[in-house]
Amino acid sequence: MELCSCYLFKDLTEDQKSKVVSVIKEFSIDSGQRIFTEGDEALTIYILKEGAVELMTVVENDFEMPIALLRNPGDCFGTPALLKPHVHSLTARCVEKGCLFALKQSDLQEQITKEPALGYIIMANLAGHFLKRLKESRQELKVHFKTLLRYTRS
Amino acid sequence: MELCSCYLFKDLTEDQKSKVVSVIKEFSIDSGQRIFTEGDEALTIYILKEGAVELMTVVENDFEMPIALLRNPGDCFGTPALLKPHVHSLTARCVEKGCLFALKQSDLQEQITKEPALGYIIMANLAGHFLKRLKESRQELKVHFKTLLRYTRS
Repeated sequence: MELCSCYLFKDLTEDQKSKVVSVIKEFSIDSGQRIFTEGDEALTIYILKEGAVELMTVVENDFEMPIALLRNPGDCFGTPALLKPHVHSLTARCVEKGCLFALKQSDLQEQITKEPALGYIIMANLAGHFLKRLKESRQELKVHFKTLLRYTRS
Repeated sequence: MELCSCYLFKDLTEDQKSKVVSVIKEFSIDSGQRIFTEGDEALTIYILKEGAVELMTVVENDFEMPIALLRNPGDCFGTPALLKPHVHSLTARCVEKGCLFALKQSDLQEQITKEPALGYIIMANLAGHFLKRLKESRQELKVHFKTLLRYTRS
């Protein structure tokens, strides 16, 4: 199942995976459809089953900077739903019609309360993912920093 | 205790905090001392008790880009020790002599195995922290993106 390739569920046992699967809903999305907007309350995380979704952030006025294009089944977004203050940090828009799995934070929380080990693994996966993204983002900043260095040295 | 103001231990019960405190060691650091280097195996996380520590990343050759200056008791660094593949993503150097708390990942893991809820809270705090840093890093990228936009439009 596409769900199991999602980084959030890595290292879960089969039994733990079934618990997550039991609370997941599926729905279809159309090209151009906005799934959520930066700053919205985040109550649900989404996992791509089919199609493609673009993530972006507002730069100024209505101009958006692209952050990622998700097109691999299992790609996951909307993860700030899992963390306080539950606010989306990006905007997600469907760019190729398809299908999403939706996992409500409150439903997952219920499973985690019953079995904290499930929450520990998911949160460790989430932290690892954010650290990876942070390193990539710093990598981009280095490029700008290098340009600046060259400029100030010349 | 300075330890309790560390974001990693937010929302822990008093009993859970005592478990963490029981495995913590304290040691002093001198100005100029390198605590760890980017790329090193990460086995321990550190919490500032006194003094100041600078975090940086290598840009090219021996040139380093500053990332953060930690000087508040409770500031914490070396957190990639808590995540696979356990590799430091930054370099840490003491810039004002002081004192650190050291928490070995293996010791914390032992506590988490006994009580997964402890691990769930710590990992959720860690993920929340990385998300905050990621948003800050994207904010910096936006500045560069805006400059580029203005350049291409003019």
